[in-house]
Amino acid sequence: MSKIVLLTGFEPFGGESVNPSWEAANRLDGEPLVGAVVAARRLPCVFGEALSVLRGEMAALRPALVVAVGQAGGRPELSLERVAINVDDARIADNAGRRPIDRPVVPGGPAAYFSSLPIKAQAAALRAAGIPAAVSQSAGTFVCNHVFYGLMHALAGAPARGGFIHIPYLPEQAAAHPGAPSMSLDMIVAGLRLALETALTATEDIVETGGATH
Amino acid sequence: MSKIVLLTGFEPFGGESVNPSWEAANRLDGEPLVGAVVAARRLPCVFGEALSVLRGEMAALRPALVVAVGQAGGRPELSLERVAINVDDARIADNAGRRPIDRPVVPGGPAAYFSSLPIKAQAAALRAAGIPAAVSQSAGTFVCNHVFYGLMHALAGAPARGGFIHIPYLPEQAAAHPGAPSMSLDMIVAGLRLALETALTATEDIVETGGATH
Amino acid sequence: MSKIVLLTGFEPFGGESVNPSWEAANRLDGEPLVGAVVAARRLPCVFGEALSVLRGEMAALRPALVVAVGQAGGRPELSLERVAINVDDARIADNAGRRPIDRPVVPGGPAAYFSSLPIKAQAAALRAAGIPAAVSQSAGTFVCNHVFYGLMHALAGAPARGGFIHIPYLPEQAAAHPGAPSMSLDMIVAGLRLALETALTATEDIVETGGATH
Amino acid sequence: MSKIVLLTGFEPFGGESVNPSWEAANRLDGEPLVGAVVAARRLPCVFGEALSVLRGEMAALRPALVVAVGQAGGRPELSLERVAINVDDARIADNAGRRPIDRPVVPGGPAAYFSSLPIKAQAAALRAAGIPAAVSQSAGTFVCNHVFYGLMHALAGAPARGGFIHIPYLPEQAAAHPGAPSMSLDMIVAGLRLALETALTATEDIVETGGATH
Repeated sequence: MSKIVLLTGFEPFGGESVNPSWEAANRLDGEPLVGAVVAARRLPCVFGEALSVLRGEMAALRPALVVAVGQAGGRPELSLERVAINVDDARIADNAGRRPIDRPVVPGGPAAYFSSLPIKAQAAALRAAGIPAAVSQSAGTFVCNHVFYGLMHALAGAPARGGFIHIPYLPEQAAAHPGAPSMSLDMIVAGLRLALETALTATEDIVETGGATH
Repeated sequence: MSKIVLLTGFEPFGGESVNPSWEAANRLDGEPLVGAVVAARRLPCVFGEALSVLRGEMAALRPALVVAVGQAGGRPELSLERVAINVDDARIADNAGRRPIDRPVVPGGPAAYFSSLPIKAQAAALRAAGIPAAVSQSAGTFVCNHVFYGLMHALAGAPARGGFIHIPYLPEQAAAHPGAPSMSLDMIVAGLRLALETALTATEDIVETGGATH
Repeated sequence: MSKIVLLTGFEPFGGESVNPSWEAANRLDGEPLVGAVVAARRLPCVFGEALSVLRGEMAALRPALVVAVGQAGGRPELSLERVAINVDDARIADNAGRRPIDRPVVPGGPAAYFSSLPIKAQAAALRAAGIPAAVSQSAGTFVCNHVFYGLMHALAGAPARGGFIHIPYLPEQAAAHPGAPSMSLDMIVAGLRLALETALTATEDIVETGGATH
Repeated sequence: MSKIVLLTGFEPFGGESVNPSWEAANRLDGEPLVGAVVAARRLPCVFGEALSVLRGEMAALRPALVVAVGQAGGRPELSLERVAINVDDARIADNAGRRPIDRPVVPGGPAAYFSSLPIKAQAAALRAAGIPAAVSQSAGTFVCNHVFYGLMHALAGAPARGGFIHIPYLPEQAAAHPGAPSMSLDMIVAGLRLALETALTATEDIVETGGATH
């Protein structure tokens, strides 16, 4: 039986009518990948609720790999997130109108979790394939970081690996946001597929800088 | 007999192995467009020489519309250039090693020419089609502006119309320039086709702001 | 009798309660500078009216040098503007509620005028003095460019020289615009003084690139 | 006897001849602040060594408050850092030529520590005083984050509080980095003084968003 790769995207938020994270994840649903198969699921863009749905799917699917994907409007490339922090601090309201400020994702949880994806190998593989990609030092403090933190908390001590990838606007979204960069859905899908394959085949990460001086 | 649309792109420069302007223009070569047909030509990225080649092609083809296209690495969208200025000021050397500073493109020529393309209608049509686009107030002072100015100088008083469109890096270029936005070749090609069609069909430009406060 | 240097700043616009261009110009009012004296005047941020006031002051003062200064919120340095273009295209309303789109500053005027300030020498002198400065290829299409164009049109053929300098937000303005750079009023004043002195003493501009590839 | 506030800055790095963090900290050395007095110390920009010096000073001075300050060239405002992560990933070499990649600051330490400064109250106080300031979600992965993490690790369980503040280039540095924002030394010093006073007087932080959507 194939291993399951759980790949999540979000519903639209922030006034957008589409969320590229779900558009892309959905395109990979059912896809076979190096001895695994992708199960795509859509998460609500709501604090708390997003994690309930994620945990439910993890319990049901028992995935070997979990990658959550979210839209990062304004970023030009695929962002391999390095670290999730234990804080919710919402600059805008989520889809249920909630705006937590400086509340822990998991009360009593550790300050942060590192991704257990091979983010350097993923960034290198993506760039080698001509797909703009970078390691990111912050997934923000909104629902994306919330899901990323909750995911890593759920995986703590478990053999399954997981992490978070931020993706740019689609071109049709950027057309309404002057100055915003974008990436085609085809390339986002190809990039996510390659990132998943790299995670499934890499035994350990490579040593290559993805740091920031500040 | 069909009208000719002369569409130029540039050879690679600045250490790149590809120039998306020529990749895109070449893909449209021979394409029929609302009673016209596209003739794509490649220009050297060399001050002076680029204009010689352009003028030669204009003399040979007698185009009704001339659109020059150039790479603007770092810009996220298709840029409809508003104005060409009579100055060469090269921050880097061109492909022949020339680096003119504060020299006129055409000695004795006017300070500037405005594009005679319907740039507002083009920007609106592109955005309506989901393609990121914006009016730009400056084409820089390198070979792109040089060709744009020389083109408009050559067209002055003639019935043919012309202008300049800057385009982003391709994704494979941006993959080597961390933080740089990009656009897929398919979308660039679709955008240029739509911009040409708009130029061929618009009888006059629309009134819609494309300005900058500074 | 000393030569007159007419230095203009603008009244606040765009929701700001202060305009650093007038704050800085006003601080230099009456200041003696290499055989000249500064006369500072405040212009309304209104299309048309701003130029009427400017022309009136030029007729009254008969200045040997005219430098108009304007706020460029978001820019980090003093911007020596290279070229003024003959177009008004207002993204926001001016202080009289006017929002011209694609109208000429001067009907029948040339497409553009170049600054007659030694902008390369000014940029070099400022940087040598530790003041961030750069040549800019576009003064936008709002009231700043409007005044710059109208100024250069008025000076055409006259012995007096003129140009335009854009300046950053003050820190107290930037404190309300997250992510916006700023410059202290003291440094803006010192920078403008040095730029004026350079204009008064430079017999010709230096040859040093201040160009942009796009 | 007054409480001690230990305020550290760094020596220059990355080719700069000055580091504004030390220039500013040094200006506050010995300054009395709401029942406390500032002791300024300079840290080497060297992984490991910087923390040795810091720990030595903490042991000697037994400060009630420790604020480390570092240069963040390219940022326009004072950055109140929220979180330090347990990773060194050097994009450039430190002043001893070391370039660790993906090594823990403290082997076996937690993934991250949150600042124990009232960062929201500090950001609000600074902005109210007209000083550009923002909460930052990442202090990078270079020596600044290294010192920030090591500091918070040393303070864990202790009554003293601590944190990290990133500051912009000085104008004279920005003059050599086209496009880079800057802040005057006077304003940096005033901002640090206000941030320290806020930390000394705030009993708890305020609830005000300082989050990022991504």
